[in-house]
Amino acid sequence: MPKVTDEHKEARREQILAAAQRVFARHGFEGATVSRLEGETGLSRGAIFSYFENKDDLFVAVVAQSSDRLVAIWMERGFQALLEAIAHEDPDWLAVQLEATRRVRTDAGFRARLGRLEEEAKALREERLARLRPGLRDDLPIESVVMFLNFVANAFAFARVIEDKLPDLDVLMELVETGVAPR
Amino acid sequence: MPKVTDEHKEARREQILAAAQRVFARHGFEGATVSRLEGETGLSRGAIFSYFENKDDLFVAVVAQSSDRLVAIWMERGFQALLEAIAHEDPDWLAVQLEATRRVRTDAGFRARLGRLEEEAKALREERLARLRPGLRDDLPIESVVMFLNFVANAFAFARVIEDKLPDLDVLMELVETGVAPR
Repeated sequence: MPKVTDEHKEARREQILAAAQRVFARHGFEGATVSRLEGETGLSRGAIFSYFENKDDLFVAVVAQSSDRLVAIWMERGFQALLEAIAHEDPDWLAVQLEATRRVRTDAGFRARLGRLEEEAKALREERLARLRPGLRDDLPIESVVMFLNFVANAFAFARVIEDKLPDLDVLMELVETGVAPR
Repeated sequence: MPKVTDEHKEARREQILAAAQRVFARHGFEGATVSRLEGETGLSRGAIFSYFENKDDLFVAVVAQSSDRLVAIWMERGFQALLEAIAHEDPDWLAVQLEATRRVRTDAGFRARLGRLEEEAKALREERLARLRPGLRDDLPIESVVMFLNFVANAFAFARVIEDKLPDLDVLMELVETGVAPR
């Protein structure tokens, strides 16, 4: 019964991703040792690395899952809901993702892994742009306008990591919407 | 002749800051060992740490200097000039500053040091807000509008670290200016 096996595999994969995110958030990328990953997942290293090639691969998968979840909120409930979701993210996890930007620059293998992931998401990105288009100004390339919104979301995550208090969401939305709304 | 001594001290301090920035950019915060700092400054650890209490203190001073330089560009030549300056920053140095956000969250001593620095800059910040006010919309608190511009600059620095290509500056400026211009 391959279906049951696939479901089991998928559940196991999810379990590993959730536990790994907690370990990365608590200890950082370097501090997320294999034995800590074993402890938090309750699985052996053999089991963990039958799902993910290595720690880089596991980290990139956790980042991708976390980012997919936020993008889905944006698509289904709008940009303000995305910012609200970021405001409720674990700041330690956001911090670890920022920290990983250093690896993106210095580690070619890590960068290639992220690049492959982006390549896979390309078709999905086109579909998302089409869904966002009606709510946005059309005198500038849609890619640029969406990139700007991405910018603001990243910056909001950044503020969540380093600041004690977050900016007023209504004021932020007013500034952003004035910039991106159809003329 | 105390004046000469002060000038000499100031020049020495600048020399240490410039060399330390290169070491932090190249090796990260953790990798910036005392012997690497000695090598790059050409000074002994005794000399270096007569100017700065410890490595945290040195790092915070380098960050403050770098940030002061960028803020001065913004004040004197405008927001687009600031973004252009960020586009020409050493991405390794930007990456190390992002990486340090983890320390801000996890290290109370480090956070206190940054906090003291911000406290010192408070009067300066008021003066800057007053200078920026005439070019910005007045139906929202000036602090919020400037915070939004800060947001965009941070996000631009972030993009410089993780992306191969930067967004078109003219398009970005159009989106930002529409949002913040006087009504």
